[in-house]
Amino acid sequence: MQLPAHGSNTKYVYKSLGMKQPEQIIDFSVNINPLGAPEVLREKWDEWFAVINDYPDPYANDLMEQLAVQENIPVTHLLAGNGAAEIITLIARYLAGSRVAVIHPAFSEYATACENEDCDVIPIVLSEPDWNLDAAALENQLQGVKAVFLCNPNNPTGMHYQRETVEAFMEICKKTNTLCVIDEAFYDFLPEPVTYIKTVLHQEHVLIIRSLTKMYSIAGLRLGFLAGNPALLQKISKSKPHWSVNALAMKAGVACLQDRSHVTETRKFVEAERTAIFKELKELGFEYSLSRLNFYLLRDPALPVQKQLFQYLLKQGLVLRHTENFPGIEGKWLRVAVKQPEANKKLLEALTVWKQEN
Amino acid sequence: MQLPAHGSNTKYVYKSLGMKQPEQIIDFSVNINPLGAPEVLREKWDEWFAVINDYPDPYANDLMEQLAVQENIPVTHLLAGNGAAEIITLIARYLAGSRVAVIHPAFSEYATACENEDCDVIPIVLSEPDWNLDAAALENQLQGVKAVFLCNPNNPTGMHYQRETVEAFMEICKKTNTLCVIDEAFYDFLPEPVTYIKTVLHQEHVLIIRSLTKMYSIAGLRLGFLAGNPALLQKISKSKPHWSVNALAMKAGVACLQDRSHVTETRKFVEAERTAIFKELKELGFEYSLSRLNFYLLRDPALPVQKQLFQYLLKQGLVLRHTENFPGIEGKWLRVAVKQPEANKKLLEALTVWKQEN
Repeated sequence: MQLPAHGSNTKYVYKSLGMKQPEQIIDFSVNINPLGAPEVLREKWDEWFAVINDYPDPYANDLMEQLAVQENIPVTHLLAGNGAAEIITLIARYLAGSRVAVIHPAFSEYATACENEDCDVIPIVLSEPDWNLDAAALENQLQGVKAVFLCNPNNPTGMHYQRETVEAFMEICKKTNTLCVIDEAFYDFLPEPVTYIKTVLHQEHVLIIRSLTKMYSIAGLRLGFLAGNPALLQKISKSKPHWSVNALAMKAGVACLQDRSHVTETRKFVEAERTAIFKELKELGFEYSLSRLNFYLLRDPALPVQKQLFQYLLKQGLVLRHTENFPGIEGKWLRVAVKQPEANKKLLEALTVWKQEN
Repeated sequence: MQLPAHGSNTKYVYKSLGMKQPEQIIDFSVNINPLGAPEVLREKWDEWFAVINDYPDPYANDLMEQLAVQENIPVTHLLAGNGAAEIITLIARYLAGSRVAVIHPAFSEYATACENEDCDVIPIVLSEPDWNLDAAALENQLQGVKAVFLCNPNNPTGMHYQRETVEAFMEICKKTNTLCVIDEAFYDFLPEPVTYIKTVLHQEHVLIIRSLTKMYSIAGLRLGFLAGNPALLQKISKSKPHWSVNALAMKAGVACLQDRSHVTETRKFVEAERTAIFKELKELGFEYSLSRLNFYLLRDPALPVQKQLFQYLLKQGLVLRHTENFPGIEGKWLRVAVKQPEANKKLLEALTVWKQEN
């Protein structure tokens, strides 16, 4: 059995390695908000039981209006989805059979979804330690490419590209007539968030993917959306199942979007924790990506690949995310979520022992 | 604005007709269980709050195992979906560009989804009053047809075909090399349920669609599944988004499937109510389809199309389902859900007044 393609659902990683899952585990492989969901969801939960019975609004009216207010762009430029994963699948469906590029390292679903739709998927693999994106150098590679996916801020590195880099990238895409798909699933974890969503108001070749499941910790409910030119969104939504966004995701989405304090509190918390973790990692002699988000790449520079460390931690119930299926990373790093202080401390303690023993 | 394509979400029907929705409405346009969801969902609801945070199991393991137990077929022959609507979309995607037939009248999503995937969709329209299905007569029409959809028991008529008819239909499909897709979304409302799901164990050309949202009244959560040959299911699931079934739908699905008493109670209740309603309708001079389910077709034989009656009832907040988008029915009937006695009584009272005034 292969290692699972994604974090979370830790039983599958143990199973794939033929290991027994310890009774107590801490899941560092899933990169959702360490503070959990906004309190308002708990408060409303009882009331929302009533919405399970009837069909959800197929046009997700209330949610769309709330999104339009938050993003300050018209609802016509938005499309809600059953998680960003559905949005990616719909885009892949629209691109079926085309030549598509993915800037790596990146979330593996872009390539997987496009390959499932018989696309010719070209990996454009950036290099350590900065995974620097030289937009001008891409012009040749993007000739004849229908769409290119960029994950910014980046999963798995946690880093983000400067505004001039992203703008140059969008310019090059326009020049090569390539649809520029930017996944901003983690943009709201940045200490000072930067989004390119407004570009869709005047650039028809730009699509922005967003997720509500990471910041608001509602991955179980599934909720994401796409921003883009209305005519393009209409084509992309053609394959979308009726009622694909469930009624609870809609209710939760509206409530979450109205709770700004949770977002600012999360940013502060994550930055403080991450900074403290990095300080200790440095002292212990580990390397890490210069992440600005709620997760980071980690490695013991003494190891060419991190499998041994990965399994050492798994045995103790500390589940990190392998990187075997991230082109350009391929096991040379592990991805780690920033969690609550107690959990982060346990990991640092285990890493301290590892260093003593190795 | 067109009349909405489906029942439920009543605001859209009022909007499409330029009418103001009354403060109090009763929604007869949505055909879900009039007894609501099993009590166990209410009991577990608080506990399930915890599952919203993390990603759902992408393989829906617990749910699949429960389904396999209930249906007594291996999990390899099952595929869970984000409502039967997602299943239909995935089948349509698999059929993209092919010639497809739909036996009408039927749920409109088969044709819509297949048309969205550039299929050439041939309507095979059966006739009143029995919408009789003569399988042998279809052989010519099914030549060169890649797949045919049959809704049995039928939405919108509420009637079901005899075993010999369905078996002859499956035989003809095999002869013409046509994939036979049977939607059994409402089979469990039949007083004595008949399912063809086991056929998939030995017939590779048969697919059975099922829904859990009607019987268990969880349309807001979205849950359906497909039964078929494993190799075919694998091809069909290719376009399925990762994590498409949300965590609550899985929890609810498992709990619902374990609660058999709700199903038997529902059947008894629906049959008793429907029988009582039919008796009154007959006395009032209305016509109705010989439904065995939780909904039926209704008409005033004095009217060639029922629009006037439809709007008369809408004004009183009694929302029936128009049939404009059901080929072979096209406004000549209205579809009505069996609801709680008080609601059914209100409808019958309004129909009594209608008869007195018209």
